[in-house]
Amino acid sequence: MRGIATETITAQAFAPFGDLIEVEGPPDKIINQGLCGRFHDRAKLDFGPQGQAGISLFKAEPRSLPHTLDMLERHPEGSQAFIPMSLDPFLVVVAPDAGGAPGVPRAFLTREGQAVNLHRGTWHGVLTPLHAPGLFAVVDRIGATPNLEEHWLSSPYLIQENTPA
Amino acid sequence: MRGIATETITAQAFAPFGDLIEVEGPPDKIINQGLCGRFHDRAKLDFGPQGQAGISLFKAEPRSLPHTLDMLERHPEGSQAFIPMSLDPFLVVVAPDAGGAPGVPRAFLTREGQAVNLHRGTWHGVLTPLHAPGLFAVVDRIGATPNLEEHWLSSPYLIQENTPA
Repeated sequence: MRGIATETITAQAFAPFGDLIEVEGPPDKIINQGLCGRFHDRAKLDFGPQGQAGISLFKAEPRSLPHTLDMLERHPEGSQAFIPMSLDPFLVVVAPDAGGAPGVPRAFLTREGQAVNLHRGTWHGVLTPLHAPGLFAVVDRIGATPNLEEHWLSSPYLIQENTPA
Repeated sequence: MRGIATETITAQAFAPFGDLIEVEGPPDKIINQGLCGRFHDRAKLDFGPQGQAGISLFKAEPRSLPHTLDMLERHPEGSQAFIPMSLDPFLVVVAPDAGGAPGVPRAFLTREGQAVNLHRGTWHGVLTPLHAPGLFAVVDRIGATPNLEEHWLSSPYLIQENTPA
């Protein structure tokens, strides 16, 4: 099986696919009499011409590494943000588009306190928490028209943790 | 000082002020080959005629009870959702409107895994986590026009934990 090694997520490495949402650097604004920092408007949201923003919760079974990747999906009508509601890293699999199908995937590991926003139309694996409770708030497009495209791989990938030698 | 006892938050009790966002009951949809439940579109978002949705992070100093409440604020142009990124309860202070000023406040305590969405224009206290890291994703209105009204209380309230006798 083809292998993919995990990478630690960074805003720069993830930029072709979406936004890494994290507390990094000084806050854009100090509010609440100095007791709160606001890191302002950190995701490129796009819900298409006929959609609108919504907040849903996803509760997903925790997975473990190595993880077999046999399907990627994308949402042509909107961006999709995954906000973990526990301080646990999770696995974010994404791929560039290669002529209407996913190209070679990349597998990012988040750190605690990080969320991601997938840009509209980005190929990605399903939500893969690595720890219970696997609870996420999801900000994505609410709308009446179809918004899911799946691509099953004829040959799966095995995602393995990249442990320094 | 006037006292307010905390209440455990419920969707019904919180309904006049906003939405309690939680995994409760069966999911609206099972996705990802049976491995994930989607609790769909659980917040009434409203960003006004000139605003749009954004995701920001708030990092706030943890507080403790009893807590002195001396100010409430509201956002006339949009709803505001607070999604904790750790499994910690937090304090949510809200008040009905009484002729353009906050009426008698109520103090709700969340349980782990719960988020809230304040409806547009709801009077509320500032973000009051009770535990570190005090990290929240906030889904609120991004826009150019003013969206904050503060009301300082001439006589503060003391919010105390309601411990059963």
